Order: sequence, then C-alpha cells, then structure tokens
Amino acid sequence: MEHKDLKILKTIDSPSQLRLVKPELLPQLCKELREDIIQELSVNPGHLASSLGVVELTVALHYVFNTPQDRIVWDVGHQAYGHKILTGRRDNFDTNRKLHGIRPFPTPEESEYDSFICGHASNSISAALGMAVASKGNYNVVAVIGDGAMSGGLAFEGLNNVSSSPNDLLIILNDNDMSIDRSVGGMKEYLLRLSTNKTYNSLRYKASKWLVEQGLLTEGRKKGIIRLANAVKSAISEQQNIFEGMNIRYFGPYDGHNVKELVRILRQLKDMKGPKLLHLHTQKGHGYAPAENYKPIWHAPGKFDPDTGELIQGDTEGMPPKFQDVFGETLLELAQANPKIVGVTPAMPTGCSMNIPMKVMPDRMFDVGIAEGHAVTFSAGMAKDGLIPFCNIYSAFAQRAYDNIIHDVAILKLPVVLCLDRAGLVGEDGPTHHGAFDMAALRPIPNLTISSPMNEHELRNLMYTAQLEGKGPFVIRYPRGNGVLTNWRCPFEEIKIGTGRKLRDGDDVAVLTIGPIGNDVTKVIDEIKDLSVAHYDMRFLKPLDEDILHEVGKKFRRIITVENGVRNGGLGSAVLEWMSDHDYDVKVTRMGLPDQFVEHGTIDQLREIIGLDNESIKKAILNSQT
Amino acid sequence: MEHKDLKILKTIDSPSQLRLVKPELLPQLCKELREDIIQELSVNPGHLASSLGVVELTVALHYVFNTPQDRIVWDVGHQAYGHKILTGRRDNFDTNRKLHGIRPFPTPEESEYDSFICGHASNSISAALGMAVASKGNYNVVAVIGDGAMSGGLAFEGLNNVSSSPNDLLIILNDNDMSIDRSVGGMKEYLLRLSTNKTYNSLRYKASKWLVEQGLLTEGRKKGIIRLANAVKSAISEQQNIFEGMNIRYFGPYDGHNVKELVRILRQLKDMKGPKLLHLHTQKGHGYAPAENYKPIWHAPGKFDPDTGELIQGDTEGMPPKFQDVFGETLLELAQANPKIVGVTPAMPTGCSMNIPMKVMPDRMFDVGIAEGHAVTFSAGMAKDGLIPFCNIYSAFAQRAYDNIIHDVAILKLPVVLCLDRAGLVGEDGPTHHGAFDMAALRPIPNLTISSPMNEHELRNLMYTAQLEGKGPFVIRYPRGNGVLTNWRCPFEEIKIGTGRKLRDGDDVAVLTIGPIGNDVTKVIDEIKDLSVAHYDMRFLKPLDEDILHEVGKKFRRIITVENGVRNGGLGSAVLEWMSDHDYDVKVTRMGLPDQFVEHGTIDQLREIIGLDNESIKKAILNSQT
Repeated sequence: MEHKDLKILKTIDSPSQLRLVKPELLPQLCKELREDIIQELSVNPGHLASSLGVVELTVALHYVFNTPQDRIVWDVGHQAYGHKILTGRRDNFDTNRKLHGIRPFPTPEESEYDSFICGHASNSISAALGMAVASKGNYNVVAVIGDGAMSGGLAFEGLNNVSSSPNDLLIILNDNDMSIDRSVGGMKEYLLRLSTNKTYNSLRYKASKWLVEQGLLTEGRKKGIIRLANAVKSAISEQQNIFEGMNIRYFGPYDGHNVKELVRILRQLKDMKGPKLLHLHTQKGHGYAPAENYKPIWHAPGKFDPDTGELIQGDTEGMPPKFQDVFGETLLELAQANPKIVGVTPAMPTGCSMNIPMKVMPDRMFDVGIAEGHAVTFSAGMAKDGLIPFCNIYSAFAQRAYDNIIHDVAILKLPVVLCLDRAGLVGEDGPTHHGAFDMAALRPIPNLTISSPMNEHELRNLMYTAQLEGKGPFVIRYPRGNGVLTNWRCPFEEIKIGTGRKLRDGDDVAVLTIGPIGNDVTKVIDEIKDLSVAHYDMRFLKPLDEDILHEVGKKFRRIITVENGVRNGGLGSAVLEWMSDHDYDVKVTRMGLPDQFVEHGTIDQLREIIGLDNESIKKAILNSQT
Repeated sequence: MEHKDLKILKTIDSPSQLRLVKPELLPQLCKELREDIIQELSVNPGHLASSLGVVELTVALHYVFNTPQDRIVWDVGHQAYGHKILTGRRDNFDTNRKLHGIRPFPTPEESEYDSFICGHASNSISAALGMAVASKGNYNVVAVIGDGAMSGGLAFEGLNNVSSSPNDLLIILNDNDMSIDRSVGGMKEYLLRLSTNKTYNSLRYKASKWLVEQGLLTEGRKKGIIRLANAVKSAISEQQNIFEGMNIRYFGPYDGHNVKELVRILRQLKDMKGPKLLHLHTQKGHGYAPAENYKPIWHAPGKFDPDTGELIQGDTEGMPPKFQDVFGETLLELAQANPKIVGVTPAMPTGCSMNIPMKVMPDRMFDVGIAEGHAVTFSAGMAKDGLIPFCNIYSAFAQRAYDNIIHDVAILKLPVVLCLDRAGLVGEDGPTHHGAFDMAALRPIPNLTISSPMNEHELRNLMYTAQLEGKGPFVIRYPRGNGVLTNWRCPFEEIKIGTGRKLRDGDDVAVLTIGPIGNDVTKVIDEIKDLSVAHYDMRFLKPLDEDILHEVGKKFRRIITVENGVRNGGLGSAVLEWMSDHDYDVKVTRMGLPDQFVEHGTIDQLREIIGLDNESIKKAILNSQT
C-alpha cells in the first residue's frame, strides 16, 4: 500500500474544517482516514481494529456535532485514532504512544477535543452523564460505548441513572460483538435479539420519526408529550426493550459504516430532548481485509505490511517466553492434575494466555467479559464450594475489584488465586495501565498472601503452591512481557509461604527486591566491585520473611529495597515498618514508582525518567555507604 | 405487645424441623416469626423493616429447599434475621450484633446455613453463580436480591454471566421499591412496568406452566426444548423482557407475602433446569403497622415500644451533633453560597444526612442508588465540566470505587470532594462495615489531598476549603456518630492544605494523630503528669505537614502515631517513611487497627480488644520512655 494522496484529509486540521466538506465527499474522506490509520500503524504499532471500526462514526460525529464545545466521550480510547487525526494531531500522529508523543488514550490533558479520560472500559456513560447534567442543555454530550464495555457493571450503573435527572445525553452503542476477544454474556444475546427483531424496531422507528416530524419530541421535556410518545410506542408493542423501559429512547440498530446515513441520523437525534441510545452495528477492522478476517490478532497487531497484511514478527528465536505464556501453560498443567482448578478472566483470554488451557478444557475456563468485580466474586463463590479458581486480571484493572477482594475473598479466607498480570510499568499504554498500586493497596488487607515471582520457575512454583490445600487467598503479581529463562518448564516444587531467597551474601549493604526487577538488581550488583552487596529476593510481600529480615536487621546498617510498584506503602514501607516494630536501627532506602502518575514510553525510558533504571539502582547502592 | 406464645416457632431449632410443619400452619408460623423479630428488636436494636419484609420468603425457602445442603445466598444480610432464628439461632438471638454474640450479617464463619458473606450489597448473584457452577447440579443454589441491590453494577455483571455457563441458579428478586431510602433509577422503572404488564405476564406464565406440566422443562438442558419454550413464549409476545433476553427465565411478579403460594411456586421452580429469576413484590416492614408507614426510620429504628411503635429516643439533650448532621447542614450552607456545588450519594441520603440539603435543593443533590463506582465517575464528569461535587460514600463501600477514584478523578486532578463517612471502626455492623482501609489504600494515589477533621469545626472548614478554586481531588474522612462540640456552627475559615495543628507542646515524646481519635489522645495526655507530651493533630494524611515533621524529627527521639485505620500503610507508615527519607533517627510507634478483620461490638469494646483504647494509648505513651 503506497501512502495515498489523502487529498481531503490533508486539508483538515480541525473538526471545524471537516464541517466545511461537502456531504457527498464524506465516504472518500472516510476512505482516506482509514488508509492513513493503516499506514501509520503499519510502522508505528498501536490499536488498529477498533479504530478502523469507528472511522465513519468518528467522521459523522465531528461533522454533526460542534466539537469541542459539544463533548464526545469515548469508552476505551484505543478506538480514537481517527478522532486524534481529525482533531489536530494528524501531523504528529507518528509519535502516537511514543515517549512525550501523542498519548495512548485520549485525555483532556492533551486536547480539548478529548472530553474525558478513557483507559479503563465502561466509564463513559457515567462521566458523560455528569457532563450532560453540568451542561444544563448548553451543549451536547455523546458517549460512545462498545458492546464489550457495556458488560461492565459501571456502564450499567450509569445507564440505570441516565433517566434520573434531566439531561439530553446521547449514548451510542457501538455493537461489534467484540471486546478484544469475542464478547460474552447475556446482554450480548439480548442486543442480538433486539437487532433481529426487525418488525418491531422498524415500526417503532417510524413512530418515533413521526413524532419528531410533528415536532412533538423537540418541545422540551413536558411529561405529557413523553407519555404520548410512550403510549404510541406501547400500542405498537406491548413490551418495551430494556433501554426504553429505563426511560432511554432507543434507536437502531443501524449500519455504522454508512457515513451519510449516520450523519442523517445524528442530525435527527442531535437536538432531541431527553436521554437516548443509538444502536450501531460496526465491524472491528472494517475496510481492511486482513483485519476483518483475523480479529483478535488485529486488536494491536504490532508492525505489519500494509499491502499484504503480513505481520512483521520480531526475532524471538531463543528468547525467554512471556510470563503470560508461562502462566497459561502452567495453568493447563496444574488443571490437568487437579480437577478442582478452574480459570476466570474478565475479557482477556488472549492477553493473559488463558486461551491456552481454554482450548483444552473450555468448560473449566470462564471468560466473564469486562467485569472485574464479578470475576473475583464469582471466583469466591466457586472457592466457597470447593473449587480453586485462578482469577487472572491485569493489575490496573484489578483496582475495579478492590472491594470484592476484601469483602468476598479475604474475610472468608477463600482459596482464590488472584493472578495480577501487567503488574508494574507496562510501557506505551501509559498512566491508566501501569500496574502501580496493587502491592500498596493489597498489603493492608488481612488474610492475603501476596507474592511476586522473580522468574518463570518461581511463577510456576508459586502457582503450584497456591493451589495446594489450605493456602487461602493467594495473590501472584507479575509483569507484562518476557521472562528471563529459556528453559522454563521446571518440575513443580512447593514454596514455603513467606519465605524469600538469599541470592548473594554480602557485608556492606543489603538489597531486598521483589519480582523480576530483582534480575536487574542481580546484574547491577555483578558490576559493583568495590562493595560487598547482599541480595535477597523477598518473593512474598505478605507475609514477609522474618528470618531474612532479622538476619538483615542484625547484620546491616543500610538496606535498599527495590520494587516495580509505588514507593508509598509497598515493599519498602513494609520493610521499614517491620524494622521499626522490631527495634532495628537501620537506614532503609526505598526505590520504586514515585508519587505521580507515570507517563507513557518504553519501560526502559520510563525507568530512567523515574530513577528506577539500573544506573540509578547502582548509584543508590554505591551511595548507601556515604 | 406481650411476648406471644410462639407455639410453633419454639419447636423449630433447625430447618429440618420446619419442614415437618403442616403447610396450613405456615401462615401462623410466619406470624410468630414476625412477632419474635419485633419483640427481640424492640429491646436489642437492629435492622427491622427488611427482615419483616422477607418473613414469608424465608419460611418458604427453608421449607422447600434442603438447607444447608441447598444454598441460600442473601444479598445484604440485614434482612436475614428470620433466617437466623429458623437456623438454630433463636435462643441466643438476643445476642444479635453484640460483642461475641450473633454476627450482624450472615457469614459461613457462624453457621453452615449462611452460604456466603453479605455485608455489601449486590454480590449475591456472582457468588451464587460460582456456587451453582461448583455444585455441578448436585444441590440447589438460590440468590435473594433486593431491587435496591439490583442497581449495583456487580449485580448486573453477575446477571450478564448467568446464562454463560450451565447452571440451575434461581435468583429471587425481592422487589420492595426500597433500599434504605427509596430505590432510584431506570431499572426500578423497568421492573415497575414488568409488574404492571399483566396480560403479557399471565399469558407467559400459563405457557411456562403448561411446559412444566408437560415435563418439557425438566428434562435437562436439551437445547431443543429450551428453543421450543422460547418459541412458545415468543409467539405470545414478540419482545422479550430483559431477563429472558439474557436467557434467564422470568417468573412473576408474585405476592411475596403469601407463604402458601410461595411454597407452591418454589416447588415448581426447584427442579427446573437452567437459570431462572422469580420476581416477588414485598413490603419492607410488612405486618407491623408502624414500620409499614414510616419506612426509612424503621430500617434500623433503635429501641421502640413494640405495642405502640413509639421510638425510644436516647437523651440527646446537650449532646454534640453527629458528624453526619454537621456534614448535611454544612453542605447546605456551602451549596447555598456556591452555585457550583452539587451532592452525590449512593443510596444513603438519610444515613449521611444529605437529605438535609436534598430537601432544600433537590435538583442539586443526586441519589444514584447502590452504585458507588458510578457515584464517583458521575461526580468526575460533573467536575470536568465545572461543578464541584461532594460525593459522600461510607468508607467501607468506597472500596467499590477504588478504580474510579484513581482513573476518573485522580489522574485528571478533578475537584471532586470525596467525603468518606463511617471511617474507622463502626461498631456493631462489624468487619464488613469498618472503614479500616481508606487511608492506607488512598495514600499511594497521586494527586489526592487526604484529610480527616478532629472535630465539627474542622469538618466544616475542610469542607469549606475543599470547594475553593483549584483544590483538586479532596478526601475528607470522618467517623460514624457524635462529634465533640455542641457549639458546632462556626464561621468558615480556609485551612492551608497540608497543615496540621500543634495542640500541646511537650519535651519527652510527641503524639501525632489524625481525626477524632485525637480527642481521646487529648484526654489521655491530660491525665499524664510524669511526662511532657507534645500533641499534634496532623489533619492531613496527604500531603503531610512537613514543618511539623521537621520540628518533631529534630526535637524528639520518640514519636507515637494514633489513627483509626489500619496500621499497615496508614498515617504511621507515612510518618515513618518521611522520617526515614529525611534521615531523622526517631523511633516511631504506630497505633491503629491490626492486620486482621475486627469483629463486631461497641466501638469502645472493640478499641479495648485491639489495644486502641485510651488506656492502651496511655501505656504506649508512658512506655515510650523505657
């Protein structure tokens, strides 16, 4: 694919310029926008399929609505590349997701066209409702939510409140039957039936249209008119659909790839009073044949050849496996040996590699959709009645399940194995996605065992240990990406809860680490010649290895703790608290993530910026003697 | 009301005995159970109205189902007093909610009849689904959820997953149009319409009944049969209701106070395969005229005269007001002066006293139902567009909004004033309700200001300060119950962010406190004659008052921190970290809640048990010199 001329697109530096384009040129503009996205992403990887799916919707929204005065609230921002390109970020779109470049997810910190933050799914309706209430009708607010995000409880809570206060919110349900993997759950079935129930919908649409044409629905919020509208609709069908039953007027489903039709519909809905929902069918990856055919891969494909759609694989020959794959393979092995084991993932079977055991034992691996709270409480229910669930959630998303972990798991000491993937810095996905807070947030919760493996063998053995009888709630956190051992498939060995490992003896200073950052520390210490440095892999944040701590407290005056998580409240604090409680007079230097949201960039770049790179760790060790 | 004979009830020490009672005697048994609950609660306060509302359902459930083998999962356990009385806890029901007595909410730790923990709303469907999956059809699982709890996102996430895996779960929707206050939201409207749509429902019921009678619906999960059933139903009504649309068979609505009818219906549903929902109408406080008439008061009425329904008020003459009322009155004052201020509460307008401003300015105070996550994100949306929301959530329930606080508020530094009511120990409501974790969990989050007032003046001034321009996200935590100042309505004064107060100078040891527990520390220090004790009210957990910390670090070798929150990660940890980071060589003794879930009892009893009573604080101060 040669880089096309993009003759319309290149004239558009802002939506106000877009709004000057003749309507009949919009399909061509969509084509150019799609080509631009494909071209850009083929060399600078990002989220492709979802952005391609909303090209027409993006153009239509900015064409019809008076952005940025009118608000578009995206739900999960990886679909918003077209939005970025149309809102003044076309020229530097090649910096997307790069350090100091365009941010991975829209945020008002970057552009006035980005109405809200959208890293975590399902928040759009609630946030947009807040804006719609605040607008007092002075501008329009549109929430764009996918059917995947609609499975999140927060979206339902938002929906449930939409009709409670006067507002003119427009919710666009972008229904592509996908989140990253295929959508699951009853709501998806319900939407499918709504879509296939054509007689009902077309009748109902005609009735609504008639009411609009008569001007009856634009005269404000007079209750009588609304009642009339409802009566007309009720006459057509006795039973209302869920949205209308919740006093949200429903329109659709329509084809989300017909840009002219979208413009027409949006114009009709734009000035309509009261809350309403527009149901669109779109296709992830639409307009790019390879992405239409192989959807999950094309969510975030990495580099690819735009002409052939061939994915450009990096050379992984001889590389250690991803922690994710070790998790998936190990869960399969354990589940084959222990019939009590089940797996639960909130919409991330591919991302966390639970698809590996899922292929072999689909009945024992549960994808519950974007529903982190349910994932944990459902796991707790299974654990209560004898099963051992491995519930895998990305660390940042597990923040959604904080109360479920406390209330449904920890109080009853249920044997849920909570695997926190993407713990620590994640790189290009930025501040909403770094798994920064898990250790500090979970440590105060009683009854939890909290661990982090330094390498693949440790991960396997922690997983093995967690599923043994009587271990109770067990957290295992590990980062995104590759481990350090190519020969990773070790035999299983039980790890005694609350024991760390002395990796190296030393006399001058002790370094205490948790998780894979310990491997960097090992390298750093290897390079230090002038000091005798001891290194302990704590392995457990809770309970702490008190034998190690006594040894360290007695022997050393200086301790350095290193962790890939927030300094405030994490491992370093735990060690400090313990030393203080046990009257050891030692100086503890705590290294970890700072008290600020860390931006996006490669992990190495970010570690350097926040002073958690190898060089900084080395300096801290050397300085400990001064 | 004299204590009735209870001649049937007193023969029942377990559900297996209940199941021996002749069906025609069940109404009499319900009468006795109701009388027993009223009698017991009139002298030993607890949750009255919701338990009265489910008397018939409770009897019918244990009559039809083979508990404890079959599981009943209550959603919010304060409705489960009848359940407790019928399951072997009648004789010591007078210890309900008392220290070492019957626990406030059912828990498997207390009885095998308590299938799951149920302190926080909306978890029943998810947990019960887990059990139903684990049961492999070997026993029945029933979730009992109120329409109030149904507004919680977790309940929807559960519902959305019910049809995803094979199970025979029965969900009973106990629809009384109330949570503690009146239910709100679109779902409530939807349920109301379901209920009034009688033709449809009665036709549908007849069809289902016919299918059951024909044995078609009991023959396992053969897809053909289900499809047939759906086809029959579709023939009756083109459009399905939301539950059926989600592949959950719907029955109802029925009268939840007709025990014989309930037994009949439950018997029909008991062995029916696949997930199903039974919609019942009940009345909170049913069968006790005073409670039927004055519902919110009767949720937890305190002591009362069972004959007249007269509430027995404690003597509050000259008592300081509750922090709750100071919050409500102050919010009203502030909102009257500042048009940007709005209020948000998730279903607790009475409990947090937001009903005070709500009466005066109903359009600016939002009760969003049981939906803590939405409450915060909705607030964030309003804040993004210029309003200043005071979002009031009980500390323990705010755990539900942990991610919303991080992702939707903190990253964008939005001026949401998060008021955490019931912070610290709450007393009789026990481990699920203590506000133990807020300070430790929120402290690691960047951009938050976190404060706690020592008294009513401080609360008012913190609230005043929080709504001033440019303050960003602002947390104010305060406990349940009375403050310390009778003359509480002070003029407003801005408090400089991150400043504490030196309450007393001293030379030997410094005590640093946060929140109202500082008043106890003041008393303790008053009694100490042999030591010169300094006392600082830190007021802000974040940012810490560094001037105070430098002063203390320079002057003292011993510091004691006292907080009504978990020791791990809270104020004490923050002070310790700061002292370590700034190279002060001081011994910090941290007093707070231990690393275990604290049981129920009066706050004084609990403080004594965990060593946070005045005597223990005094000892710690005196021991600091040894």
